[in-house]
Amino acid sequence: MHARNIKSIIQADLAAISDISEEAVNSVAEELQINQKYYDYREMLNDPSIEAVVICSSTNTHAQIIKEAASAKKHIFCEKPIALTIEEVNDALNSINISGIKFFLGFNRRFDPTFSKMKEEIKSGKIGTPHLAIITSRDPAPPSLDYVKSSGGLFLDMTIHDFDMARFMLNDEPYEIYVSASSLVDPAIGKAGDVDTAAIVITMKSGARVIINNSRKAVYGYDQRVEIFGSEGMIMNQNMPKDFAFLSNPYETQLSNPVYFFIERYKEAYIHEIETFISCVMQDEIPPVGGEDGKISLLMGYAAQKSLTENRPVKFSEVI
Amino acid sequence: MHARNIKSIIQADLAAISDISEEAVNSVAEELQINQKYYDYREMLNDPSIEAVVICSSTNTHAQIIKEAASAKKHIFCEKPIALTIEEVNDALNSINISGIKFFLGFNRRFDPTFSKMKEEIKSGKIGTPHLAIITSRDPAPPSLDYVKSSGGLFLDMTIHDFDMARFMLNDEPYEIYVSASSLVDPAIGKAGDVDTAAIVITMKSGARVIINNSRKAVYGYDQRVEIFGSEGMIMNQNMPKDFAFLSNPYETQLSNPVYFFIERYKEAYIHEIETFISCVMQDEIPPVGGEDGKISLLMGYAAQKSLTENRPVKFSEVI
Amino acid sequence: MHARNIKSIIQADLAAISDISEEAVNSVAEELQINQKYYDYREMLNDPSIEAVVICSSTNTHAQIIKEAASAKKHIFCEKPIALTIEEVNDALNSINISGIKFFLGFNRRFDPTFSKMKEEIKSGKIGTPHLAIITSRDPAPPSLDYVKSSGGLFLDMTIHDFDMARFMLNDEPYEIYVSASSLVDPAIGKAGDVDTAAIVITMKSGARVIINNSRKAVYGYDQRVEIFGSEGMIMNQNMPKDFAFLSNPYETQLSNPVYFFIERYKEAYIHEIETFISCVMQDEIPPVGGEDGKISLLMGYAAQKSLTENRPVKFSEVI
Amino acid sequence: MHARNIKSIIQADLAAISDISEEAVNSVAEELQINQKYYDYREMLNDPSIEAVVICSSTNTHAQIIKEAASAKKHIFCEKPIALTIEEVNDALNSINISGIKFFLGFNRRFDPTFSKMKEEIKSGKIGTPHLAIITSRDPAPPSLDYVKSSGGLFLDMTIHDFDMARFMLNDEPYEIYVSASSLVDPAIGKAGDVDTAAIVITMKSGARVIINNSRKAVYGYDQRVEIFGSEGMIMNQNMPKDFAFLSNPYETQLSNPVYFFIERYKEAYIHEIETFISCVMQDEIPPVGGEDGKISLLMGYAAQKSLTENRPVKFSEVI
Repeated sequence: MHARNIKSIIQADLAAISDISEEAVNSVAEELQINQKYYDYREMLNDPSIEAVVICSSTNTHAQIIKEAASAKKHIFCEKPIALTIEEVNDALNSINISGIKFFLGFNRRFDPTFSKMKEEIKSGKIGTPHLAIITSRDPAPPSLDYVKSSGGLFLDMTIHDFDMARFMLNDEPYEIYVSASSLVDPAIGKAGDVDTAAIVITMKSGARVIINNSRKAVYGYDQRVEIFGSEGMIMNQNMPKDFAFLSNPYETQLSNPVYFFIERYKEAYIHEIETFISCVMQDEIPPVGGEDGKISLLMGYAAQKSLTENRPVKFSEVI
Repeated sequence: MHARNIKSIIQADLAAISDISEEAVNSVAEELQINQKYYDYREMLNDPSIEAVVICSSTNTHAQIIKEAASAKKHIFCEKPIALTIEEVNDALNSINISGIKFFLGFNRRFDPTFSKMKEEIKSGKIGTPHLAIITSRDPAPPSLDYVKSSGGLFLDMTIHDFDMARFMLNDEPYEIYVSASSLVDPAIGKAGDVDTAAIVITMKSGARVIINNSRKAVYGYDQRVEIFGSEGMIMNQNMPKDFAFLSNPYETQLSNPVYFFIERYKEAYIHEIETFISCVMQDEIPPVGGEDGKISLLMGYAAQKSLTENRPVKFSEVI
Repeated sequence: MHARNIKSIIQADLAAISDISEEAVNSVAEELQINQKYYDYREMLNDPSIEAVVICSSTNTHAQIIKEAASAKKHIFCEKPIALTIEEVNDALNSINISGIKFFLGFNRRFDPTFSKMKEEIKSGKIGTPHLAIITSRDPAPPSLDYVKSSGGLFLDMTIHDFDMARFMLNDEPYEIYVSASSLVDPAIGKAGDVDTAAIVITMKSGARVIINNSRKAVYGYDQRVEIFGSEGMIMNQNMPKDFAFLSNPYETQLSNPVYFFIERYKEAYIHEIETFISCVMQDEIPPVGGEDGKISLLMGYAAQKSLTENRPVKFSEVI
Repeated sequence: MHARNIKSIIQADLAAISDISEEAVNSVAEELQINQKYYDYREMLNDPSIEAVVICSSTNTHAQIIKEAASAKKHIFCEKPIALTIEEVNDALNSINISGIKFFLGFNRRFDPTFSKMKEEIKSGKIGTPHLAIITSRDPAPPSLDYVKSSGGLFLDMTIHDFDMARFMLNDEPYEIYVSASSLVDPAIGKAGDVDTAAIVITMKSGARVIINNSRKAVYGYDQRVEIFGSEGMIMNQNMPKDFAFLSNPYETQLSNPVYFFIERYKEAYIHEIETFISCVMQDEIPPVGGEDGKISLLMGYAAQKSLTENRPVKFSEVI
């Protein structure tokens, strides 16, 4: 998907692709007519004609690749999360700082047209001072148990987007986090040591309260809503429906459910984030979302996990 | 309002009214053509032709009047809350039990057409097993500081409706309550010892999580939304708008805001609750909402207050 | 309904009721505690204590009662239409003019909160100059064939409200009318000489075009929508739903259909029109909707009928 | 746009492009990495490796290119309309019939996800027998006067899509057409001999009535709504908003207006239509929309123009 999106951006030149799967490399290279192919990313990093890389390998490889790419002076776009441990994150951020390259973290939701408009409206004072935020984030179906086990858990895999959304929308930092969660969707998720349903309250430094609710299974589709309530107004979004038809029969009026999952929902966001990354590289600008954002959202996930384990509100300062 | 509603119900006969304000009694009696007037409720309780009474005096008088009305064998409709202390509530409930009269507590929202339909849909299994409930309850403007001081605080005055709504919708009981709250709307409310903005998580006995958010001031009007998310679906409501027009200009499409406050919003609910009370009396049926509901919602308010004070989740069993 | 509404208005005194059915008179008088009852309206017109009358008898009696009430110097509120023939209407209007009493015609939709707000927005220039109006007016179920036969036909019985709405919203008069209509709902309506489905285009004097569509049977409920499109914007309304809940299941999101029929839909409008009438009488003001409005809408019905018969656009001037 | 869309379809190979503007050819060829470029379409038609062509030149060249492409045995996708005179259309269709190639006419709206879903719902009987159709089609801003003069007029340029939509949705053919129209948006359009605001009623052969309303200028954006009302229900669509945020301030709740124009609105439709064309060529299937559809919609435009000129309903049979 990222390759196709880059290909559609006139300002950028998709110079090469790399993957450990030769088959994947070959099929994508053929489809998108990419001349240069690599089966080892290290070779690609040696290519002096390459200015920037997009890292979308599996999570456990991110930190290592970041360090090597930073050493090779390539600007980096990296899928979230940077890593699952704070030590690895610090290591990666350190190498970025030393090399001075630009680092862009793929918190795609920030680049969704609806959410970025909401951010602008809030920033421009349309709702006054934010008092409450309600973030609803529900997946259409739980991932495989294998995925669950290696994902870092609900908070690092799924809620991490909502943590970032809270900071992004409110321009504020977390003070204290409380979690009540369990596995209501599938007991197997509970047995695997994770939860699938969560209610979270974050007391922000400003005093604003953020409420997040998560579920791994919303039968009606991908539910992605954000509501920010302030002293002078409220802004929220509706889900993006599959289509805009509605049918009235003798019993009810039927609307289309939300689109099924993130690929459809954040289609435009994925393009905008890459465009923004390319623009930052070309205009020599600081990326709007980077390493620090990745680190803070990870720590919020730690605090959430600690709150769940200890059944008490946990101060963000406890996990730094 | 209650007098006017009773007057409009053919099955009932509005026999008499009583108030300590002679002026209020006289003006209402004239407007509604009520023959019998009392300036002391005790006299009215002596009237053998009266079968049932509606208590809508100030909160601090409820328990005493309930006890006397119960002794006089009058069926009782009483505005919430029964009292602000659990001792008084127990006292009142005791006298009701002894006399054997019917007691109906005015949790009006249960009788709103939208909320009662939602309850029916949930009960009939349309959304499967409830996992999450999001209750949004925001007043259009804070009450006077005098009112704040005598109201029992946000949780007993305002959130009590949401506590009842959670139990009503989920047919479930609270296990643990966590509150994060402060005064963001008006510091004077904070100085008066109360809060005006709250985020609350209730872990129910079934494992379902209820999230309540409250504010004393929503500039766009009375915000009353309930969303119940379950294993097989989700049901929620939109606010009732002032009107159904919408205007598109070159900049945006404008809709009407919600109706201003409870009088307009729960107009039909107030009629339905009295109709239901009258029907219970006439058909000799147990009221669908009574003393126990009043007691539990009060205790939930206590637990909320305790959680706020001690900054920790409080088990419901701690306040019984 | 009118009696109950008048009863609820403090400024008015419901002095007496009259009907040819003794039973109806007695039951309403008892329910609403009205002291004075008449079984012949002529006797009521002789009562000097009565200032104004509300005529809601069957259509064929309106003109005669108006004439007698006008002679008796009673102000008149009359249900639409004044009569089914223009001669009778002229006669009735004549008697009103001679007596100098106030005459208010019950075009209830003008007093609906949504439609009256739309009128105000248009009047204040919010949508610029109106270019197009789309009026959708569909009943939930066709009336009895007996009613159809005595109703004066679709245009005088049902579309007459839409004709009035067009003039009201646009503050404009008809220039030419074209109708395409037939009986698609029920062939029996066709056999009875009427139509049940109609598409109407009115070219207004300003050049604005009004499009009306009617059906006697909308299975999803009473469909009452008006859309006015102008040089600077557009204003329209949605139907009033039965409730504000919506349910998402794996297949779709379900909303409530519109309320079933005019009694629920125009509940508030019926109260506002009587309030306005009473206020006109008390403040000595000219009613906002009167005899001339009744006459023009009737003539528009004639033009519509003529267009249908002759299959051509008919100028309004042809029917005056 | 079409070139970019074809490029994104894996099954197709964008072999070459041609345009009379060398500059346009060169820039597109470079952007999309197309090897073969032509500045004269005739040369391209000689290329034996090309199986199919997409004609999106100016309207007055369509018929000629179709004839030549058909002779060269290339399958054809052609933008609507085929031509502005029925003689040219017949000529073009004739050459298509002789050569036996596949001809696909670009009535893009049929391939919009919302409209194609509505068609399926109607076809499957969800709304019973269609009785009424209301088609609203308004552009955000009038085209240049030069365009107006060469466009064939409102009915052939803009309403032609609505004519096709009526046939598509109802699976029905026109019997009689009535038009009331004038230039309310800009008198210069009137001076150029065209209209910019129209109300049209089409009586279909089944008896269903179709109402179309058009304006060249909707200040709030591209307004594209279709409503089909039937014996068992109603189906309609809402416009596609620019985003899904809504903001409530003390005065109103603000939603996003519709997307500005056809490029955004029918983005997916443009991709689907080309995909369908390619699939028809590859699977040897008859295109779902072809020459006959182009011819009938053109004739409907003629009938509309005749109705406007003669101020009377015109039977479709009069223009065949």
